[in-house]
Amino acid sequence: MKSLHDAIRPTTFIESAKLRDHFGLDITIATETFQHTGSFKFRAGYNLALNVDNDEILTASSGNFGQALAYACKLLGKKCTVIMPVTSAQVKIDAVRGFGATVDLIDVTKVSRNDRVAQLKAQMPDAYFASPYDDKFVIDGNSTLGDEIAVRDFDAVIVPVGGGGMISGVISSFCRNGKQTPVYGAEPKLGNDAARSLAAGEIVANETEPMTIADGARTLQLGKLNWEIIKTGTAGIIEVPDELTAKALRLYFGLVNLKSEPTGALSLGAVLADQERFRGQKVCVVVSGGNVDAGVYARIISEG
Amino acid sequence: MKSLHDAIRPTTFIESAKLRDHFGLDITIATETFQHTGSFKFRAGYNLALNVDNDEILTASSGNFGQALAYACKLLGKKCTVIMPVTSAQVKIDAVRGFGATVDLIDVTKVSRNDRVAQLKAQMPDAYFASPYDDKFVIDGNSTLGDEIAVRDFDAVIVPVGGGGMISGVISSFCRNGKQTPVYGAEPKLGNDAARSLAAGEIVANETEPMTIADGARTLQLGKLNWEIIKTGTAGIIEVPDELTAKALRLYFGLVNLKSEPTGALSLGAVLADQERFRGQKVCVVVSGGNVDAGVYARIISEG
Repeated sequence: MKSLHDAIRPTTFIESAKLRDHFGLDITIATETFQHTGSFKFRAGYNLALNVDNDEILTASSGNFGQALAYACKLLGKKCTVIMPVTSAQVKIDAVRGFGATVDLIDVTKVSRNDRVAQLKAQMPDAYFASPYDDKFVIDGNSTLGDEIAVRDFDAVIVPVGGGGMISGVISSFCRNGKQTPVYGAEPKLGNDAARSLAAGEIVANETEPMTIADGARTLQLGKLNWEIIKTGTAGIIEVPDELTAKALRLYFGLVNLKSEPTGALSLGAVLADQERFRGQKVCVVVSGGNVDAGVYARIISEG
Repeated sequence: MKSLHDAIRPTTFIESAKLRDHFGLDITIATETFQHTGSFKFRAGYNLALNVDNDEILTASSGNFGQALAYACKLLGKKCTVIMPVTSAQVKIDAVRGFGATVDLIDVTKVSRNDRVAQLKAQMPDAYFASPYDDKFVIDGNSTLGDEIAVRDFDAVIVPVGGGGMISGVISSFCRNGKQTPVYGAEPKLGNDAARSLAAGEIVANETEPMTIADGARTLQLGKLNWEIIKTGTAGIIEVPDELTAKALRLYFGLVNLKSEPTGALSLGAVLADQERFRGQKVCVVVSGGNVDAGVYARIISEG
């Protein structure tokens, strides 16, 4: 059994001359696309599976967390059940099953995710229910990415925001390390609940799941634990229109040879949305993951 | 002015659980897609520009070497002229110009590349003419990639072969380091001159430029200096049909989140072509570069 530190793959820092020249900005990429299971979520999944006493873990995730947790449970010899909408991409269902997890497919027009979670919790009293973001072990796991960034000197760090798992992890790490570097969140404009929460001083939810291309950020609201960290810890939330997220994905493709998923491109999209804010600064943009269907990716890179 | 060692970006090693599980093989990727200018050629270009006395360098390259040499010359304050076919992708012409080099566009239906090289050599008597592969400085520059691989333990290393610049560099390094690891070349079946040369014991040329999707390997024949190293130094040349190169590119996309150009995917294509040869071995596949047009890439990943 490996420690968290030994299990995770260090993030990949890339300093691209072409990207820097394009923006006239000192940008460094920290990409989690080569993390195990293709996204930063493995840090959280492994830390959680390693530290909870339960032998069985339950989660609801159509995306990267389900895959990450399934793989972590495989490595640690635990049972894992992932609730996924029946409409999930087959490749994602196959990936979770490929790591030996049980996939519980639900028709969300007939049963809500929350109701199904409640049903399975009742059926599996010994299982630990893991939120993909609103969980101490998740935040702690994600904080290891912050630790890797903290040893370098940046004037600003920008991370994608959905439920707030990554940004709260990075802020936690910076606090722990006595690092004052401002941490910005990059959120899809179509689901700008984090920006509105910050303005309101309390958690504000989207009325419906926002249909942004950044599918990893299609969350209704920030997690409660995440919000407690974000509300005083973030330097600000930058709202990114989908067209700038797509443009950022194309810049990664064309200038950096980096395959990013749309959600991963949010942080560079934030630079596109508010370039002047970062003038003269050493900026780190975090790419959260790279898992994207071929059809979606082919369409976005062809639109340029 | 940086030394070669300080100027190059170390290669990125990736151990992907998904890729390993897919093949049931212990595969490690060494990818040069994040090297400066997006391919291993920067190693050669920088070493050459650093070591020749001439203040002006001339080359003929529609691909990665032109870009790499142009950027190296920019960094080292030298003049650079790159002969390119007028039919080259605009994005490649723009990239070379973006690094401050002069682009000499030729209509290959009216003047051959070799004739134009001769014309410009005559016009620029003080310039150094750099072959993209058949040059001592190029081979020495590429050998630095071999040095990075040599410090790890593999049972086999597979590298793409066009003119033979990379494979001769890796073999040179292994010789220098007393490393016995077999080095295989992965060559497009459509342009299998290296395999035929090895069988014949002398350089055999393709009659015409092979129209393989691995556009970095559309060479007529191996370079002379390269052949001298390859003929006794390689463990073998594996011929890769274009459909397996495309399949390898898709596996990188789907399982590894790695954007490879078709030529870069040749080495994994060789594993697909001859999987049993590598059973039970620790294999390193080198991805030579990631520069590919969005349209070509979108088409290949959509064909899966």
